[in-house]
Amino acid sequence: MSDLIKIIQERRSVRKYTDQEISEESLNTILEAVRWSPSWANTQCWEIVNVKDAMLRKQLQETIAPKNPATKAIVAAPILLALCAKLGTSGYYKDKVTTKFVDWFMYDLGLACQTLCLTAQSLGIGTVIVGLFDHNKAAEILKVPTGHEVVTLIPMGYPQKTGSAPKRREVSEFVHVDTF
Amino acid sequence: MSDLIKIIQERRSVRKYTDQEISEESLNTILEAVRWSPSWANTQCWEIVNVKDAMLRKQLQETIAPKNPATKAIVAAPILLALCAKLGTSGYYKDKVTTKFVDWFMYDLGLACQTLCLTAQSLGIGTVIVGLFDHNKAAEILKVPTGHEVVTLIPMGYPQKTGSAPKRREVSEFVHVDTF
Repeated sequence: MSDLIKIIQERRSVRKYTDQEISEESLNTILEAVRWSPSWANTQCWEIVNVKDAMLRKQLQETIAPKNPATKAIVAAPILLALCAKLGTSGYYKDKVTTKFVDWFMYDLGLACQTLCLTAQSLGIGTVIVGLFDHNKAAEILKVPTGHEVVTLIPMGYPQKTGSAPKRREVSEFVHVDTF
Repeated sequence: MSDLIKIIQERRSVRKYTDQEISEESLNTILEAVRWSPSWANTQCWEIVNVKDAMLRKQLQETIAPKNPATKAIVAAPILLALCAKLGTSGYYKDKVTTKFVDWFMYDLGLACQTLCLTAQSLGIGTVIVGLFDHNKAAEILKVPTGHEVVTLIPMGYPQKTGSAPKRREVSEFVHVDTF
């Protein structure tokens, strides 16, 4: 099994972290990796906020349903990144919509997010992708400008323990030949 | 530089391929990797059509603007995958929309797509993500059922040559501290 396959298979949603800090160097490696993600016509619509301030973290926590299993991680994680997007570029050509899916920022942020999570995993750092929160309130807290959105919050840290993987469909269940 | 970083940085959009076939084993490795992608509450909305039939390839090619640089690849690539999504699951809780972004299939397909492209790259196989085509016509050609969408076409093969990377923004240009 190649290193990459191992990294892909061993990535988990990690919500509890040890006290070990993430070094500047490791964080830079992760952010540098995101830089090389592919995107619609290389539009690179991603923007990342590294939320360090405890008060801002607390406010972000309040945008999440208390029963969300990642609620504590928003405040407790050594690093909290907010993955944001510039709207109106990905999926557009000369400011015009080109496909039925209109803005492709969600697709491109997905690409960037997996780059981020796999690079973290390769350094032994756990991540969890949090998408269920009040996005308008979070954008206000992080002063996200008009024409941009905060899409996911990604707490990161060294895992306290490694859980088992949630079950996945078999390849034969999602692959079709010639037609769906 | 770790293997993963090298794979991430060396992945390119590859549109011209050698005659070398992609083995069953390599294709299975790539599809098996996709299986382990993360997704909204593990909903795994991805569906993949492996389009082998020459006539279907030709029809798909006609859904793409002739000046698209990937037009030839749709027919010529050793493998052509169509990345599809089931709607109404990712981003939903008990059939109800949970966030302002409504359906998260684009985000989850982005995650799956980067898993796919990086795994291919780790095997020396080039990919290009094609998103600009007539999605309704393509869905008709591939007999994609109601409640699903074909989102991207991904031609794959061993690269004829390796181009240079398009310029990327510096990390300092997209990373913000505490607020955007």
